[in-house]
Amino acid sequence: MDKEKILAACDHTILGVDAKWEDVKQVLDDGIKYNVASVCISPVWVERARAYAKDLKITTVIGFPSGCTTTASKVFETKDAIEKGADEIDMVIHVGALKDGDDEYVLGEINAIKEACGDHILKVIVETCLLTEEEKVRVTKIVSKSNADFIKTSTGFSTGGATFEDVKIFADNVSNGTLIKAAGGISSLDDGEKFLELGASRLGTSRIVKAVKAME
Amino acid sequence: MDKEKILAACDHTILGVDAKWEDVKQVLDDGIKYNVASVCISPVWVERARAYAKDLKITTVIGFPSGCTTTASKVFETKDAIEKGADEIDMVIHVGALKDGDDEYVLGEINAIKEACGDHILKVIVETCLLTEEEKVRVTKIVSKSNADFIKTSTGFSTGGATFEDVKIFADNVSNGTLIKAAGGISSLDDGEKFLELGASRLGTSRIVKAVKAME
Repeated sequence: MDKEKILAACDHTILGVDAKWEDVKQVLDDGIKYNVASVCISPVWVERARAYAKDLKITTVIGFPSGCTTTASKVFETKDAIEKGADEIDMVIHVGALKDGDDEYVLGEINAIKEACGDHILKVIVETCLLTEEEKVRVTKIVSKSNADFIKTSTGFSTGGATFEDVKIFADNVSNGTLIKAAGGISSLDDGEKFLELGASRLGTSRIVKAVKAME
Repeated sequence: MDKEKILAACDHTILGVDAKWEDVKQVLDDGIKYNVASVCISPVWVERARAYAKDLKITTVIGFPSGCTTTASKVFETKDAIEKGADEIDMVIHVGALKDGDDEYVLGEINAIKEACGDHILKVIVETCLLTEEEKVRVTKIVSKSNADFIKTSTGFSTGGATFEDVKIFADNVSNGTLIKAAGGISSLDDGEKFLELGASRLGTSRIVKAVKAME
């Protein structure tokens, strides 16, 4: 797979809590230069990033990284982010509700946020590293049943990131055209290619662009 | 110092992303039994916890743990939490703004959230483990200048928790009656006592109640 194709699947990401504008700007500049799918930045930076880089797709994160905010707050955050210029929304589910068996809550929350998204792409982070095999399968079915566009493995802020095994579980259980985003710990073009081959169509990573830059 | 006095300063905390209702309920039950200052729980649990434990003080967390949401979202989250029954609000600042030298942003955001709090106590988490010495002193002065009630060391979700040194920096630089909460990694009654002696008046911890239970 050529590197342009892998880069075109990347959400080039900066979500560090202590990121400064200079750091975010570097990611926007690199995002433009390397033709990534989007940049993924924290909500607090969206308005400024939109003004700085008019033609770049911007993904932002909602209920991130805990997922433990209320549905009302997640919906407000989503509307606020879109108003400020976000193109795509990556939300975190309430993992505790999934573990409590409250599938209706998880589904209802996803659909409430998708409604706030309108035509904007919604990706649903399920934090696979905290889930049992049964929960991974169950949540893949919930997301497939919802109006969301993608299921996404990880925030990158918990105990683990994307694994080949988890993306395979997603691929084996998605339906209704639900797409897959692998995120967290993806560090090389080879890794990226493997995730794409396994069924992912988006990669959340800060390191693939860095790896490509290092090759120049 | 007797253990009742230390317990009375504790915000008995459960903020794990995969906490289930059963886990939260245990913390509420222990909070009542051991006469803690409050329990500290995620926003998603506030409404149910309020209905379950009518006479227990409930602290919740805003913009947690990243601090990288917009001021508008943090204000919405605060109002939503208070409406659902929260008594006290622990917010996270945007560390990137502090690092960018935008003290006005940090101050303005704290005051906007305090306005949404009304008479409810507001604690400001500054995530000391990510700050330089200069930034720790500067943010202590910003919080003292604001209308917030407490400055708080840590989320417990970053690279480190409360240290004796940081609480001493707070104590040396607070003014206007600003109080201090030490949080993150506090594991014993001895630790708790030391933090209180250094100037903290609140302790964010899950482990002191566990330690007391283990002694019974």
